[in-house]
Amino acid sequence: MADASCSRPQVNGILETSLYVEHPSRSVEFYRRVFGFELIDSDPREGISDETRLCAMRAGDRSVLLLFKKGTTADTNATGAIHVAFGISRSELPAWEAWLSRQEITIELRKTWKYGGEALYFRDPDGHLLEVVTPGVWSIF
Amino acid sequence: MADASCSRPQVNGILETSLYVEHPSRSVEFYRRVFGFELIDSDPREGISDETRLCAMRAGDRSVLLLFKKGTTADTNATGAIHVAFGISRSELPAWEAWLSRQEITIELRKTWKYGGEALYFRDPDGHLLEVVTPGVWSIF
Repeated sequence: MADASCSRPQVNGILETSLYVEHPSRSVEFYRRVFGFELIDSDPREGISDETRLCAMRAGDRSVLLLFKKGTTADTNATGAIHVAFGISRSELPAWEAWLSRQEITIELRKTWKYGGEALYFRDPDGHLLEVVTPGVWSIF
Repeated sequence: MADASCSRPQVNGILETSLYVEHPSRSVEFYRRVFGFELIDSDPREGISDETRLCAMRAGDRSVLLLFKKGTTADTNATGAIHVAFGISRSELPAWEAWLSRQEITIELRKTWKYGGEALYFRDPDGHLLEVVTPGVWSIF
């Protein structure tokens, strides 16, 4: 029987978030160009092609975005569109609107959350639903 | 034409990571019991059932884990297993091994990464591949 009396160790936060993509080179180009994420590793290491199994990109100070080539990872196999939200500063919201427009990315939805957070929603090349959002989506962030 | 000369606004990090689950109440119970994540919101607000469209859980100081009931969110629709990694302190690794054992969760894989990071892999109730990992997986974290 599961025993909850043993003290539970701590999690510091989410380190890696995964997306499953058709064309790794297209996705790496997109996340580098639109978000400025740096490619920090890949498997295999040599160059990025549409056969690269895994690309790891640094997404801010504590997060890694993993881009798995669909169908090449035995132990996870997600298909369909996934949602990921990126935190931004409130003062950067107008700059994000302008930047997405310059990048010819369609904003699918603008939303103001109940705690005042403002969000822009748009798609990545695989149709994953991305959000950039200011503080105030959740009561605590 | 996309114009990269305009200055790119900043992303602070990944705020929300999503999983798509069959039974929201089972998943909320699992993430609360195993990780200590607090339920911070749901849609609808009243109680958690297997019909709850979205449960939001606090995962550490800067991250939110979103649990979407499969098939109820029009704009994202992922199926299959997704990978998520949670950062832990190096000193907590033995406690995590003991804790997972107490919770009767099978460790599927133990791995030491090239920069010294040590990881434990296991599954959530939907088969999503979870990892708790110490610093040293990536060159930068």
